[in-house]
Amino acid sequence: MEKRRNSPLASEYRLKRRVQFYETDAAGIVHFSWFFRYMEEAEHALWRAAGLSIAPPEAEIGWPRVAASFDFHRPLRFEDEFEVCIRVAAITEKTIRYSCVITSGATRIAKGSLTIACVSKRPRKAMKSIPIPAEIAARFEIASGGDAERT
Amino acid sequence: MEKRRNSPLASEYRLKRRVQFYETDAAGIVHFSWFFRYMEEAEHALWRAAGLSIAPPEAEIGWPRVAASFDFHRPLRFEDEFEVCIRVAAITEKTIRYSCVITSGATRIAKGSLTIACVSKRPRKAMKSIPIPAEIAARFEIASGGDAERT
Amino acid sequence: MEKRRNSPLASEYRLKRRVQFYETDAAGIVHFSWFFRYMEEAEHALWRAAGLSIAPPEAEIGWPRVAASFDFHRPLRFEDEFEVCIRVAAITEKTIRYSCVITSGATRIAKGSLTIACVSKRPRKAMKSIPIPAEIAARFEIASGGDAERT
Amino acid sequence: MEKRRNSPLASEYRLKRRVQFYETDAAGIVHFSWFFRYMEEAEHALWRAAGLSIAPPEAEIGWPRVAASFDFHRPLRFEDEFEVCIRVAAITEKTIRYSCVITSGATRIAKGSLTIACVSKRPRKAMKSIPIPAEIAARFEIASGGDAERT
Repeated sequence: MEKRRNSPLASEYRLKRRVQFYETDAAGIVHFSWFFRYMEEAEHALWRAAGLSIAPPEAEIGWPRVAASFDFHRPLRFEDEFEVCIRVAAITEKTIRYSCVITSGATRIAKGSLTIACVSKRPRKAMKSIPIPAEIAARFEIASGGDAERT
Repeated sequence: MEKRRNSPLASEYRLKRRVQFYETDAAGIVHFSWFFRYMEEAEHALWRAAGLSIAPPEAEIGWPRVAASFDFHRPLRFEDEFEVCIRVAAITEKTIRYSCVITSGATRIAKGSLTIACVSKRPRKAMKSIPIPAEIAARFEIASGGDAERT
Repeated sequence: MEKRRNSPLASEYRLKRRVQFYETDAAGIVHFSWFFRYMEEAEHALWRAAGLSIAPPEAEIGWPRVAASFDFHRPLRFEDEFEVCIRVAAITEKTIRYSCVITSGATRIAKGSLTIACVSKRPRKAMKSIPIPAEIAARFEIASGGDAERT
Repeated sequence: MEKRRNSPLASEYRLKRRVQFYETDAAGIVHFSWFFRYMEEAEHALWRAAGLSIAPPEAEIGWPRVAASFDFHRPLRFEDEFEVCIRVAAITEKTIRYSCVITSGATRIAKGSLTIACVSKRPRKAMKSIPIPAEIAARFEIASGGDAERT
């Protein structure tokens, strides 16, 4: 289900997936909320390809989502095979932004974006935005072209 | 969405609900996995009616599910209104068992069962089954008839 | 769970809701994919307040989502009570765009946007974008201020 | 993600899977409702291994679930790898019953059961139970041992 990239740094991941029945709705197509989960699945696979977990046990930092969007071009249906391509589009001191393109064969299905922030997790307190630890930032690089579209 | 019972002890809760679009599947009916969520929604409302939260912040105990089942009699469809009646069927030293009936108007939709166990939550360690704290056990009583069917 | 507006035309709906346990994730907060479902729940309640169903049985038209986005400001946790305010922001020949603000008490939780298109449903054929039927367009009006923020 | 069995008839399928973040809850473990979806994922992969789809486009028959149950032994956590083994336990004129065991390495996680019925799909009418078409029944056989446990 996953493939490691040859590159030492992670900038892009292509997740192959099939539509499950519980992801469809009464309109006979994948419910739009699922695309955000597909994008996150690919993100977490990208982190594993970088040798990381985005949520290891007892982690003292976390990665809440601060923005997410999708444009939907074509529907997906039960048992359709598709590919989720996520790319690192930008890295700032405290955030990472990804772009994402979902395709099924030669058909563009949807195009999305996701921004996450690094926070410290403090019991009984609000989450606090902090700089991305250097050892994590060092594992990623911005995808050439900077946009998951150029594939 | 909730009503407190007059009885000082919680033994039963009736949750009124409407089917949401994201709960349906490509067969045009509510996906069967949702019935287990409906049952849990009613369970948590029962706990609130008892003046409790099943998962308060920083809780040192938890309530994992150890068994769950449903028999499905009739489908639910988008925007159908239905009622989830959950009843305390049995309480042992370390577990609570509920019975549950889902109806829509006069139609029996499904009948389920749920057993939960009390465990201590210990970071980095496996969950350990423990006796139900007395102050929690004291808030519940077995529903008369003992079965959510007798309604 | 719903309230009808006095206004004859639907332009805004305020849905009151409580966080369910199955909506939370291992970070202890509502998973971001759920905000899109909350927004859709409010949308469908708006349609019911307008005397309509967005997906009546045997409908010959449908309303796929063509774009959706959210900015997330604060997390929601188990049993938090919150309000989803959805407003009609724009109506074109073939699309409706909503803006959405989610609040919990005085706290702004998230701000979203959703665009849907009217399509004809043709078995075995691709969905085809069509003009919104006049009797449906006549039930909605653009919210004053045009943005769910001005509340 | 799937492997075809050498046997000409389908009686068992082993699905390898990893826990996704959106499947976890605030207790830090996979929400129990997901186990029913895992079981169904394996069921549909079993049908594909048998050369069938359980819900092909424009199907005139359907397979609603009439009973489902799980006993939960150990929790699953984010990124855990696990295996879902589903086996055909019984076939009657109108129903199929599966047994299911979920394991993670050498650890038994859960044990479930699922019964589905064959129905005709008639627009605007209630679903009607019918005999399983011969060409479908001919693709399955009862797993030797008859129970997914004997693996």
